[in-house]
Amino acid sequence: MKEYTEQELREDCVSSELIYDGKVVHLYVDRVSLPNGAESVREYVRHIGAVAVLPLTAEGEVICVRQYRYAHGCVMTEIPAGKLDSKTEDHVEAALRELREETGAVCDSLTYLGLFRSTPAILDEKIDLYLAEGLHFGDTDLDDDEFLNIVRVPLPQLVDDVLTGKITDGKTQVAILKVNEILRRRAQKESNTAP
Amino acid sequence: MKEYTEQELREDCVSSELIYDGKVVHLYVDRVSLPNGAESVREYVRHIGAVAVLPLTAEGEVICVRQYRYAHGCVMTEIPAGKLDSKTEDHVEAALRELREETGAVCDSLTYLGLFRSTPAILDEKIDLYLAEGLHFGDTDLDDDEFLNIVRVPLPQLVDDVLTGKITDGKTQVAILKVNEILRRRAQKESNTAP
Repeated sequence: MKEYTEQELREDCVSSELIYDGKVVHLYVDRVSLPNGAESVREYVRHIGAVAVLPLTAEGEVICVRQYRYAHGCVMTEIPAGKLDSKTEDHVEAALRELREETGAVCDSLTYLGLFRSTPAILDEKIDLYLAEGLHFGDTDLDDDEFLNIVRVPLPQLVDDVLTGKITDGKTQVAILKVNEILRRRAQKESNTAP
Repeated sequence: MKEYTEQELREDCVSSELIYDGKVVHLYVDRVSLPNGAESVREYVRHIGAVAVLPLTAEGEVICVRQYRYAHGCVMTEIPAGKLDSKTEDHVEAALRELREETGAVCDSLTYLGLFRSTPAILDEKIDLYLAEGLHFGDTDLDDDEFLNIVRVPLPQLVDDVLTGKITDGKTQVAILKVNEILRRRAQKESNTAP
């Protein structure tokens, strides 16, 4: 099988058309030139980007939100998340804002968990994931069109819910499994260095 | 904070408009009625659905593909994946097809890893994830507009790459972390039942 250089895999824009410029979704249809010189079409959505936060209590519970997802026609369990307010909004500020708005919590510590690209073939959305610890609770402050319930679930239960398919939201699956692995490694390190 | 019943969280369609009916992306803008009776707009994309497969060799290596993602402007490492050929295509058949087309492999065993919803706020895409074991390799058979390199990476390395942010594709992150957790539990169970 032919091996390409990274440069050879590149697809270049021949022409770009903005089909729909919405509030959240910005749909483009581009003609691109392929590595073999042929042309093809790429339909994709531009998105401002988002943040998601896994809030972990001192008791090892995760604060999740349950909300109706219109595109899927069902209520889903997810970690608190939201899109950036502007292209220049600081991502940490956005994470703290979403955490406060959706759960009423502020946190003593916010740890970056890395980037999540939702579905790179058709969407440029990037979601920065965070772990929030040292939580203090106040009032929520939801958007006008946002309705949700808050649930507290022990992390081990959530890991099982991801493995058994009860939790299906991608960013939530990644955040739960990452935090589980991080805590497991942290505990292992501590037990290795214990006197 | 007000607690809703699941029924109360529901958003109902007031009117629906198909904005763009593409090859992959089908964009809708709907007016919906919210739980408080107000109306809002939901912009979302319908997608036929997809499958993704984590192919694991007997040596514990994962067969990944590296391909250019136009929406992100970079080459990304992902597990083999592709959209369903039709709404009625069997998902297991689709998984075996994508595995064969992208990596040239057939497998003795295919384990369902659960559902991944890429980004439920704006997209109805559902990706069924699978683990393929007992691999036998033949020729690849790529789509006309598909160009990629195949790489083999040990699973523990991939887990580290997910944790350190080197792997950013959502479905790939979930599949790697799920398989890692499944294999860890399997090993634990075996060591617990060892004589």
